[in-house]
Amino acid sequence: MEIERKFLLSKPPDLEGTESDEISQGYLALGFEGEVRLRRRGKKLVLTAKRGSGIARDEAEVELDQADFDRLWPLTEGRRLHKRRHLITQNELKVEVDVYEGELEGLVVAEIEFPSEEEARAFEPLDWIGEEVTGDERYLNETLATKGAPS
Amino acid sequence: MEIERKFLLSKPPDLEGTESDEISQGYLALGFEGEVRLRRRGKKLVLTAKRGSGIARDEAEVELDQADFDRLWPLTEGRRLHKRRHLITQNELKVEVDVYEGELEGLVVAEIEFPSEEEARAFEPLDWIGEEVTGDERYLNETLATKGAPS
Repeated sequence: MEIERKFLLSKPPDLEGTESDEISQGYLALGFEGEVRLRRRGKKLVLTAKRGSGIARDEAEVELDQADFDRLWPLTEGRRLHKRRHLITQNELKVEVDVYEGELEGLVVAEIEFPSEEEARAFEPLDWIGEEVTGDERYLNETLATKGAPS
Repeated sequence: MEIERKFLLSKPPDLEGTESDEISQGYLALGFEGEVRLRRRGKKLVLTAKRGSGIARDEAEVELDQADFDRLWPLTEGRRLHKRRHLITQNELKVEVDVYEGELEGLVVAEIEFPSEEEARAFEPLDWIGEEVTGDERYLNETLATKGAPS
């Protein structure tokens, strides 16, 4: 299980030259009753099914080839998002910085992964980190893809 | 577009020796917002995504290999059904007879495909055909897989 905290970035760090991937994702189906997502990350095309929520969440994924991905992708219309994910290391912590694009441009979110719950709790946000949105449903990708950015 | 009518079978015709396939299907996600189904029919493993309802329904499917099917199938738990589908021809009409199994045993449903709307309207049910359930949501596979047979 991953221990993560999620923050808005008011003043993103310099991302120039960091490792990054272009991510496009769209939802074939959404909701507590089950969620099926398509994602293109670089050249990798993946279908992910999720079920339940919180710690009772089950998840499975399969890789698709281009033809299958292209067949399913049109069904995600109106429920898509695009972002560039940068992987950086700050104070020995792994940080994923998602810079959203298109309709969500301006939104930058960082997820920080911690090796233990103690370290997650003890974490003091760095100066480029803004409001914490851990567990905030408005910042779930599912919500962003269907309802846009919170106003 | 298929023109079909759907009937319960009170007294099924003799299905001995007819062409038939064992079908197992389960839902990864359900609802108007999108539905994703896994189906094993004979040896063929297919994932189908649907969206919308009625004539505005979009649909796409991809074939899965055994390993991918097995990875996703556990997420359909509690939302599955099993049936044997017989393909027969009666009065020059193509009839699919679904004989449900497991918890739905006893339920037998026929779907008759017509070449035109006129012929669909003019159709006089045969003596082995019972109540018409065309468009009855209680007899959708999605409903049967999650709520069981109507009582």
